[in-house]
Amino acid sequence: MAGPFYFEDLSPGLTFKTGSRTLDAQAIKQFARDYDPQPFHTDEVAAKDTFFGELVASGWHTMAVTMRLLVDGEFKPAGGVIGGGVDEFRWPIPVRPGDTLSAVSEVVESRPSKSRTDIGLVRVRHNTLNQRGETVQTFIANHVVQRRPK
Amino acid sequence: MAGPFYFEDLSPGLTFKTGSRTLDAQAIKQFARDYDPQPFHTDEVAAKDTFFGELVASGWHTMAVTMRLLVDGEFKPAGGVIGGGVDEFRWPIPVRPGDTLSAVSEVVESRPSKSRTDIGLVRVRHNTLNQRGETVQTFIANHVVQRRPK
Repeated sequence: MAGPFYFEDLSPGLTFKTGSRTLDAQAIKQFARDYDPQPFHTDEVAAKDTFFGELVASGWHTMAVTMRLLVDGEFKPAGGVIGGGVDEFRWPIPVRPGDTLSAVSEVVESRPSKSRTDIGLVRVRHNTLNQRGETVQTFIANHVVQRRPK
Repeated sequence: MAGPFYFEDLSPGLTFKTGSRTLDAQAIKQFARDYDPQPFHTDEVAAKDTFFGELVASGWHTMAVTMRLLVDGEFKPAGGVIGGGVDEFRWPIPVRPGDTLSAVSEVVESRPSKSRTDIGLVRVRHNTLNQRGETVQTFIANHVVQRRPK
């Protein structure tokens, strides 16, 4: 499949894949130093006495990497990957140093905009998986997608 | 108020503030190059022909900066700022170069864990505001918080 995909192309049930990226300890700590400096994200030793018991990636790091995978992946809506919001955002299990992440996306619902004739709203579940196929992050994004020009 | 706050301290209605951070065009573009390389986040000129019509921050940049503000702010749950998930995540208006962001958090619900006696679950609405007091991002986080030791 090649994009970009207009609203009319994005039928419920369609799925899209991405490439992958491995998160090493250095990348996990660097993101955390900038945006989420808590011991379970910045220091293997200090992490032992925390809820996680080990160094894990910030959930927002997992999300940022997922966004990059999506932008570089098969899901190419006309107008760009634009979300007005996200629902049901969960991190079922932590991301650990050395994990390799990829994402799978499935269209779950689509409807024309009530207020604008040039766009539609497409709900897509984006699941981020580790190298064992376990879901480390899941959410439903409400995407704004251009309608096919008449 | 000084933390850390145990589950028992976090009653619905309590509010917490953060400091602020200004996002300039360079920071917006740098985050986007790493995690969300789309024209409306990376290039003022190319952005003119997009949905936004101007350079705006990636929503995940706004989120990452909000996380940093929260970690450095008044909301200090015992055990750290740990979220099992997020609901009702919305970006009502874009963040533009030069905007100064801060966050306000309000506890909306709390309940003991059914499976573990040492933690509780606290739902908190975190609103990120610009320098005009407009909400640029809002979500409800489901926080895992330590119970007060007996």
